[in-house]
Amino acid sequence: MPPKAVVLLSGGLDSFTAAAIARSEGFGIYGLTVDYGQRHAVEILAARRVAQALGAMAHRVIPIDLASFGGSALVGDGSVPKDRTLDDQSIPVTYVPARNTVFLALALAWAETIAACDIFLGVNALDYSGYPDCRPEFIEAFERLANLATKAGVEGARFKIHVPLVTLSKAEIIRLGTGLSLDYALTHSCYDPGSDGTPCGRCDSCRLRAKGFDEAGVADPLLKRF
Amino acid sequence: MPPKAVVLLSGGLDSFTAAAIARSEGFGIYGLTVDYGQRHAVEILAARRVAQALGAMAHRVIPIDLASFGGSALVGDGSVPKDRTLDDQSIPVTYVPARNTVFLALALAWAETIAACDIFLGVNALDYSGYPDCRPEFIEAFERLANLATKAGVEGARFKIHVPLVTLSKAEIIRLGTGLSLDYALTHSCYDPGSDGTPCGRCDSCRLRAKGFDEAGVADPLLKRF
Repeated sequence: MPPKAVVLLSGGLDSFTAAAIARSEGFGIYGLTVDYGQRHAVEILAARRVAQALGAMAHRVIPIDLASFGGSALVGDGSVPKDRTLDDQSIPVTYVPARNTVFLALALAWAETIAACDIFLGVNALDYSGYPDCRPEFIEAFERLANLATKAGVEGARFKIHVPLVTLSKAEIIRLGTGLSLDYALTHSCYDPGSDGTPCGRCDSCRLRAKGFDEAGVADPLLKRF
Repeated sequence: MPPKAVVLLSGGLDSFTAAAIARSEGFGIYGLTVDYGQRHAVEILAARRVAQALGAMAHRVIPIDLASFGGSALVGDGSVPKDRTLDDQSIPVTYVPARNTVFLALALAWAETIAACDIFLGVNALDYSGYPDCRPEFIEAFERLANLATKAGVEGARFKIHVPLVTLSKAEIIRLGTGLSLDYALTHSCYDPGSDGTPCGRCDSCRLRAKGFDEAGVADPLLKRF
């Protein structure tokens, strides 16, 4: 039996790549997707495709209604900004309050239950939207918390939060995934897709994706689907 | 407008008392209850009664299916132990993996959305079941995380996780709440109640409650209901 890793799978290309890295390191993948009321619910379908492509040992989609708290354009409070300057350092309205804290808490709950000590998260703090819960200092604080929070931690297990992409550019992530033969046509990135999943091409997430493929010198296979 | 505090309300007497302390300190109460698939779902009804009695500004019940992860007698994996020695130092099977991490993450998400910096949690680390996520070092680690995790934290807000009961005995909590005129008949503590909510009288939670009322020299008003 390979060691188990819980991998947060959003359906985007970062988490797909992080999961493939976990697999290449010998972990059995337990994919966790949170259906939190995001307006781009099509990403849940992408997460299912990705989990299957990875040969995940299990994939759970957990509904939790963060939209009922509101506070983010991603859960329907206001509209998703378009054509934002990518080097704008402010935290955009697509920030979802405490999202990665909630996601990691759920990943920890499942990890402890299945006796996994390893959690993978595809955050990156270079080509990203400036969200505070993507920074290395947040990840380190969560790892410390995980070991204090749990029965397994008290009994000597050492939880590790793996963020293999945290210092990579989007282009480096895409090159890495291409080297691992990942089919990025399975993924979804757009914050504000059409009803058939067509990317808008203008939100932060679409633009970071396009910039990444461009800099990596690779065509985005997703665009062939539309 | 009084400052806002998010208070985790389980329906038990500790969180009721913690909320009353928040109110006595001048906070407007935003009660948060998590319906996580607990076998003692009757506690959700108690949480609603308690929120009303407190004059909460708002009360949210958020469903999240921790039972689908399993791993605890409280979500239906195995039976609730009865007549356990209360000074047994081991962590019992009623421990729910990462429960307070998940609860605090949700409280943080709501707090940030409504611009509250204060979160109250009724944990205590004296007369308790030995859960790791009730200890002061866990609370301190979460508070640190909260300030790194959030846009509000980055922008200078200082989240505080209040645990006013953490060093009190159950008897001291009951005396304190009695002094605040709390009606503990509204609360529910039993892990394994009958279908009408009758406490079993033998689980850890019933026994800690009985011991607390006994040591406080107060009759438990809940028992008059059955």
